[in-house]
Parts: sequence; C-alpha cells; structure tokens
Amino acid sequence: MEKYRGLSPAQFFHRNKEIAGFSNPARALYQTVRELVENSLDATETHGLLPDISVEISLDSNNPDRVTVKVADNGIGIPIHEVPNVFGRVFYGSKYVVRQTRGVFGLGVKMAVLYAQMTTAQPIYVKSAPINSDFIGEYLLYIDIDKNIPHVLKMRIRKKENPKLHGTVVKLTLEGSWVQAKKRIEEYIRRTALIAPYATIRYKTPEEELVFKRVSKKLPEPPQVGRYHPKGVDVEVLKEIIKTVRDPDTTLMDFLVKSFDGVGEKTAQDFLHWAGFDPSIKVKELRLHDLEALASKMKSFNKWRRPRPTTLSPIGEELLKEGVKNILRPSFVKAVTRPPSSYSGHPFIVEVAVAYGGEIPPQDQPIVLRFANKMPLLYDEGVDVSRKVVDEIDWSVYKVKFPAPLAVITHLCSTKIPFKGVGKEAIADVPEVEHELEIAIREASRRLRAYITRMERLHEIQRKEAIIRRYMPEVI
Amino acid sequence: MEKYRGLSPAQFFHRNKEIAGFSNPARALYQTVRELVENSLDATETHGLLPDISVEISLDSNNPDRVTVKVADNGIGIPIHEVPNVFGRVFYGSKYVVRQTRGVFGLGVKMAVLYAQMTTAQPIYVKSAPINSDFIGEYLLYIDIDKNIPHVLKMRIRKKENPKLHGTVVKLTLEGSWVQAKKRIEEYIRRTALIAPYATIRYKTPEEELVFKRVSKKLPEPPQVGRYHPKGVDVEVLKEIIKTVRDPDTTLMDFLVKSFDGVGEKTAQDFLHWAGFDPSIKVKELRLHDLEALASKMKSFNKWRRPRPTTLSPIGEELLKEGVKNILRPSFVKAVTRPPSSYSGHPFIVEVAVAYGGEIPPQDQPIVLRFANKMPLLYDEGVDVSRKVVDEIDWSVYKVKFPAPLAVITHLCSTKIPFKGVGKEAIADVPEVEHELEIAIREASRRLRAYITRMERLHEIQRKEAIIRRYMPEVI
Ligand SMILES: Nc1ncnc2c1ncn2[C@@H]1O[C@H](COP(=O)(O)OP(=O)(O)O)[C@@H](O)[C@H]1O
Ligand SMILES: Nc1ncnc2c1ncn2[C@@H]1O[C@H](COP(=O)(O)OP(=O)(O)O)[C@@H](O)[C@H]1O
Ligand SMILES: [Mg+2]
Ligand SMILES: [Mg+2]
Ligand SMILES: [Mg+2]
Repeated sequence: MEKYRGLSPAQFFHRNKEIAGFSNPARALYQTVRELVENSLDATETHGLLPDISVEISLDSNNPDRVTVKVADNGIGIPIHEVPNVFGRVFYGSKYVVRQTRGVFGLGVKMAVLYAQMTTAQPIYVKSAPINSDFIGEYLLYIDIDKNIPHVLKMRIRKKENPKLHGTVVKLTLEGSWVQAKKRIEEYIRRTALIAPYATIRYKTPEEELVFKRVSKKLPEPPQVGRYHPKGVDVEVLKEIIKTVRDPDTTLMDFLVKSFDGVGEKTAQDFLHWAGFDPSIKVKELRLHDLEALASKMKSFNKWRRPRPTTLSPIGEELLKEGVKNILRPSFVKAVTRPPSSYSGHPFIVEVAVAYGGEIPPQDQPIVLRFANKMPLLYDEGVDVSRKVVDEIDWSVYKVKFPAPLAVITHLCSTKIPFKGVGKEAIADVPEVEHELEIAIREASRRLRAYITRMERLHEIQRKEAIIRRYMPEVI
Repeated sequence: MEKYRGLSPAQFFHRNKEIAGFSNPARALYQTVRELVENSLDATETHGLLPDISVEISLDSNNPDRVTVKVADNGIGIPIHEVPNVFGRVFYGSKYVVRQTRGVFGLGVKMAVLYAQMTTAQPIYVKSAPINSDFIGEYLLYIDIDKNIPHVLKMRIRKKENPKLHGTVVKLTLEGSWVQAKKRIEEYIRRTALIAPYATIRYKTPEEELVFKRVSKKLPEPPQVGRYHPKGVDVEVLKEIIKTVRDPDTTLMDFLVKSFDGVGEKTAQDFLHWAGFDPSIKVKELRLHDLEALASKMKSFNKWRRPRPTTLSPIGEELLKEGVKNILRPSFVKAVTRPPSSYSGHPFIVEVAVAYGGEIPPQDQPIVLRFANKMPLLYDEGVDVSRKVVDEIDWSVYKVKFPAPLAVITHLCSTKIPFKGVGKEAIADVPEVEHELEIAIREASRRLRAYITRMERLHEIQRKEAIIRRYMPEVI
C-alpha cells in the first residue's frame, strides 16, 4: 500500500537541488557565489550604503574539488538573534515585502548551506556585525534538514572594538568545479560591477586578484518598502491585506486609499462607482464572493494611476547607456526607461537599450543581455521573456539586415521578478512584462532605424563624392 | 529596520506561482490539466491497473475565462482520511520513495488548488473511492495558505454501491485562457496517449470529444519501490538512510548490503577493502567525518554493479520505435534503450530514438522530442539537457547534411528526474545523464550513418543503371 507523508521545506530542496541551480559542481559553485554576492549587495545599497564587497575563492590543497567561498560586506549586518534562522531555515528572510531587492525567495543562502553540508559535511561560518549594535556575533551552523531548523554548533558574542563597523562575513566549503565555473563566475562579477558602478568589488581567486573599483559615488535612491498596486492582486492577496487592517470599521473606500499604492480618494471613488460597490461597506465584512468580485473588478478597471516608483530602483537611461558602452563598445546606443507598470499587484519598470555596430560582432540574430533587479542573468536565455520578445520582432522594419552587429539589453526591476525558477535565471512570459518590453524595444529601435537610415545616406553621399572625385579632373 | 519572518510552503508557492508553470492564464490551464492527468496515470499504471482516464474541460457560459477542469480515473483512489492532506498541504504525497512516477514534488495538484482559489475563490472538489475499501469520500476543500493546511468546507462518506469500483474524480475552476491553451493541451494529451499506448483517454472540450483508445492491453511491469544506488549518495542521504536502520549493532558491511540497490556481499567487501573501512564497524557509530569519507569513497568507487531496473519502467526499444513511427512517419528509425545507470544515488535509464526521412520536415537543426517518465515535455526545450547534447554532436560524422529531416527522441526514466523547475518542463545537465544520452544518441546515429551510406550507394547504383539503360541500345 502507498505510504503518505510530508516533507519539510529543507527536505524538499535537499531532494531537488537542481531546481535552485545546484545541478552539478560547476553550476553549484557559480550559484553559491551569486547568492552570497547578491545578499551583500542587498544589505548595502538597499539601505543607502556604498557597497564594499570582497569575494574570495580558494581550493583545498589536498582536494581541488573542495572549494571555499568567503564573502564579506559592509552592509547592515543581521541582528545576532536572527542569524540562525536566516541561514538555517528555508523560507525565512527579511525580503518578503513590497520592495525591489535581488533576493526574493528567502532561499538562496540556505541552498548554499544545504549543498555545502551534503557534499562536504561542513557547517557555514557567519560573522555578523549589525549596524546600530555594539556587538558582533559569530556562528558555526548547519541545517537540520528533517525539521527545517538551524542547528548551531558554536556561537560567540563579543563587543565591537569599533562600534561604527558593520557588515557580514559568510564562509562555506562545498564540492565545486572551479576549473569549469571560473569563466562564468568572472563574467558574473564583471557584469555585476558594471550595472552597479557605485560598488567596489574585490575578487580573489586561486589565480588572481581583481578589484573593480567604484567609478561613481552616487548611490541611486534606495527603494522604499511600499504597498501593492491595486491592479491584478488576487483574492488571496486581498484576504492577506485585509487581515492587516486593524480598525474593524474601516470602509472599503478607506481600505483602497490606505492599503494600496497610488490610489487617492478620487480614483477610489471612481473605481467603486464603476464597479458598483458601496464605498461605506466595512471591508472586514466582505464575504468570499464579494472579494472575488472585487479582485476581478480591480483587475479590469483601467483607470488606476501607474504605481509610484518609490519601491523600485531602476538604473536610468544615462547609466544604462554608459554600462552598455563599457561592455559592448557599439557605435550606436539608445536606452529607454519605461514608466512604472504592474502585474498581479507588483510594480515594475522595464529598461532596455538597443546597441548597434562598433565592436559588436555581427550575428545571425540579436545578442540579448539580460538583467533583473541589477543582477546579470547568464543562464537559460533560451526560455527568457526577453529572448522571446526580441525574436518576435521583425527587425527588417528597423532596417536591420542579418548578420548584424545588434544587441538588446534588458533590465526588469520589480518588487517581485516573475522568475521561472528559484535559481533566478530566466523570467517568465507574464503578459504585462512582455508588453512593456516590446514597447521599450520598439521605441529604442525606431531611433536605431533613424541611425541606420542616416548611415545609409552618409554612405550614399560618400559613394557619390568618391565618384565625383574620381571624375573631377576630367570635369575640370 | 528590517523585519524578519518565515513563509509557509503554501505562502511561498502562492507568491511564486510562475516557478511552477502558472505564469499566465494559458499556461496555468495547461499546467492544471497536466498535473491532474499525471496523477491519474500514476494512480493506475504504477499499480498495475490499465488506465481509463477522462478529462473534461468546460467554460462558464457567463465568463469564458472561468474554466472548469474535471479529471476522473480508475486508479487506486486515496485513503479517505488522507484526502485533505494530499490536496491541501504543499509537500505532501505518496511518491517520496525510490520508484519511477510522474509525480515527484508532492506539489502539482496543490498548485492547481492554489491557483483556482486565488483566481476564482473556488474550492476543489474531490471524490475518492479507494481500492480495497467499502467507502467513498467526497470533499470540498481549499488550502489555508498561511498555515499550509487543508481547510475542509464539506465532506461526506458513504458506502460504495459496487465495492469493486475504485478511482478518483477531481474538479476545479480556475481563471484560464482556453483559446490560447487548447493547441498545447491537445498536443500534450496526444503525445501522452502515444507514450502510454495501454491507456484509454477520453478528452472532452467545449468544441469536441476525442477518445484515444488503448491500442495494447499489455501494461509494462509496474515499477517497484526500491533502494538508493550507492554511487553518488550525499552525506545527508547517508544520514537519512542510517536513521532508518533498526538494529543498533548493524555493521557497515551489513548496512551496505541491506540498504542499497545492487550491492552483494562480494561487492561490499571489495569496496570496503578498497576504501580502507573496517567492515565490522557499527554503522550507527560512524561520526560525521567518517560519513563524509564514506560518501566520497562511495562516489569514486567504480566497481559498483549497475542499479537493477526494478524501480524503473522504461518503454523499451520496440514500443519507442512504434511510437516514433506513429508521430513522425520517418523512413528510418533506430531506438536504443541503455542499461540502468545512476546519479546522486538515483537509478535512471536513458532511451533514445533517431529518426530520419519520410514525413519529417527538413530543418536547419535536428528536431528534439522529449519525454521524462512517460510525460511529454513541451516547454523550455532550449534549456533541456537533451537539446544540449543533440546540439553538441557533429552530425556530419553521421553523414547528415542540414537542412535534414532528422529527429531525436529522448526518454529519461528515473526514480527522480532532475527537473530544472517544479513545472517539470526541462531536465538539468546532470553529467551522468548527459553522458548516457550522448552514448545512446551516438549508438543510434551509427545506424543512421549506415542507412544514409546505403541510400547513397543505392542512388549511385540507380544513377549508373539509368546511365547504362540510356546507352544500352547503342551497346547492343
Ligand atoms: N550579507 C548579508 N547581510 C545582511 N543580511 C543578510 C545577508 N545575507 C543574508 N541576509 C539575510 O538573510 C535573509 C535570507 O537570505 P537568503 O536565504 O539569501 O534569501 P533572500 O535573499 O531571498 O531573502 C535575507 O533576507 C537577509 O535578511
Ligand atoms: N488521481 C489520484 N489518484 C490517487 N492518488 C492521487 C491522485 N491525485 C493525487 N493523488 C495523491 O496525492 C499526492 C499528491 O499529489 P501531487 O500534489 O500532484 O504530488 P505528486 O504527484 O508529485 O506526489 C500523490 O502523491 C498521490 O498520493
Ligand atoms: Mg538571497
Ligand atoms: Mg502530481
Ligand atoms: Mg525553470
């Protein structure tokens, strides 16, 4: 007979490490570096701190497949009593809010811990010096997989010598393939530095030490914790938000204005009138079928204001352009940052750049470089929504003839990127995102068309001039 | 300041529905049908029952975006007291064992329930008539997302009229896009019927009713629940297996023989001698660093026997060939079923077919058709290991000149398919799987080469004959 049982979240991800990008020793090493670096960037720039991050990769001298990864940052640190949970409990973290961060799943570093302990049986070392605290905590811990709880082997708390110091150090040892992973990891670090030019990243490997020094001290406005956008929130999210309402007498009208992003009294009134809801009904008294009707109406109402961009932190057209010039050295580049939009209640902004000519190698199809919340995405391009949108465009409309030196760079920022997998490599084809991407790419491409037209004319003139020059002596 | 908190597994998947394939209304509908059909096939053929499955899709007459999916089967049913958990608790199921099944995550049907309740606020209806029981249970339930527990709205138990009847009916209503999904869903059903020719599938849609009648009554040998293969199990799995050992005096020698697949006394002895372990040491007394050494030695030992195929249920070369002929109508097809192998302790078998000519449309690259544990995989081909292996082969070695009418069909069976995502669409590039795929494709392709050579000779002879015929009268 069948036996039925449940798994803890840690057991689930231990069994299914491939779904988090830990499918082989090379990819696992890459993914580990990524998860740690992204946590460090979140802990700094999201809180208005100029990132200073050091990444160190070293090999066991007896066994080069045992790789130690150490990442240190000058971020806000982690409250000492929270360290065990954030590193030792799957689905635990501080980023389950409406705000743009690189992390979103509450899973990344736990996957690294799981992988380390399953391949080398080594615990993770964490040192946290929380900001606004006089103490430093050090931990050695692993995950009790059956129970999905941290198991602390050692801990030590001491007073900071310099109370102004803050940040986190994380170190772990896993089975990895450095030889196979190193190119990708370096590319990842390089492109991370490019998209976050205000970060300094020290990168030390068994062979070399690279320092990507910040080229700008201008940190973008940090994203704020905000609220859902009303368009597209589902019934369950509605229920969740209503639960957080304290006052039992809150009316539907008040609820809309106070709990959602970009909803003023006027908009709320217009919506309620259009949807046929009584504005003075108490939101706590709405029944399930009312909520379903409400969610459905909120979705089809098309006069919501766009979400405010305060929860997001795009790069901006200027910086994007600079970054693209640095990576690709094209002869033409046009960047477009779209106004904020939303899907399923999550605000998002699409930015794209279209680059052409110069040092871009001519290819049979456009090169696509993808970023999401300032993370470079290097794997799984074939199933990413950006690739899909780029492939569906008829480029001859923009006078591009393949093979062509054409690159499309996309950056999606959102309070929740709709990743296809917890490895954060490809973005799903959510219709709203697809739509914004297409608009942005077409807008930039119209400029490309103008550029190519100008170039063609220029060549034509040059050709004519050459002919004239050739016949000139005879004419004279 | 940052607020730290944990999510329940249901909250996690509610927030991240895209990672389970529920990224838009079309894909969500497709995924829902898939999850239900795969559960029905698992509930029948895995238990030696000839599958009789009916799938019914209907649209709400007031709102065609509200789609009801109903799937009924003649499977083993679900013990009545287990129904709430298997449908209402994420990470709960009966398939967390070493045995080939379509399901593996304990998540599929819960994603469908979550999606239904978040888009239409409707609960799921389940009727279960368990085999070897006199009762039938009916439930209406949804998931309490915060707590990850089932919330039962209604339940009713009654006596079976016919105690021999058994099976399950599941019905739910979600927001879906039938127009956009229907082609894919039909393709999915068609290819499922082809790879499981002993199943009868009735498929009723708003427009038509199709019946895929079984063409064979020969059910393959059902897969048995088995044990891990010793090669590649990680330290955490070792710990887990040791926990299940009852007798505290069990020696390492006994442990290896009794707890793993395909390890006899001789092999165990050879291994322990080679690895330098004392065979009489008590396994319960092994320390963490012993376990790490053991796991590492077990991984590098290369004289383990291949896993026994009893946990697996491949299609076999004959059936695969027939299936391919039915789908593609090629003029050449060669199928290869490899002997069992393993990765991370999971037994697997690779089967491939290489098909050429006939009605296969010539393309610039080989067509790849993928199956995993008898499930057709329709999405995300671009990141699947099969695509990778096929693309890395230099086909000119096999005399293929593109554009060519070439198709490669792959089928991976395993007690755990290394899917890249919980949507079960693409398989990760696990080195062991990659290796077996390559061997199998090359073996089949050598026959293709011989075929193409023969064809070339034949054409050459025909050409010469034609020439001779032309000159014949003169010669005579
Ligand atoms: N270097 C760090 N500095 C500060 N906080 C960190 C750091 N690394 C991890 N954290 C905390 O640990 C939590 C869990 O991290 P992780 O498992 O990677 O999930 P996520 O980044 O998706 O939230 C984060 O939400 C953050 O609160
Ligand atoms: N039609 C069915 N007949 C019998 N058992 C079923 C059926 N559908 C679901 N189940 C049971 O519910 C469990 C959970 O299903 P699901 O969430 O799809 O996960 P999985 O199929 O990966 O185990 C299955 O393991 C199985 O025990
Ligand atoms: Mg993280
Ligand atoms: Mg299932
Ligand atoms: Mg995926």
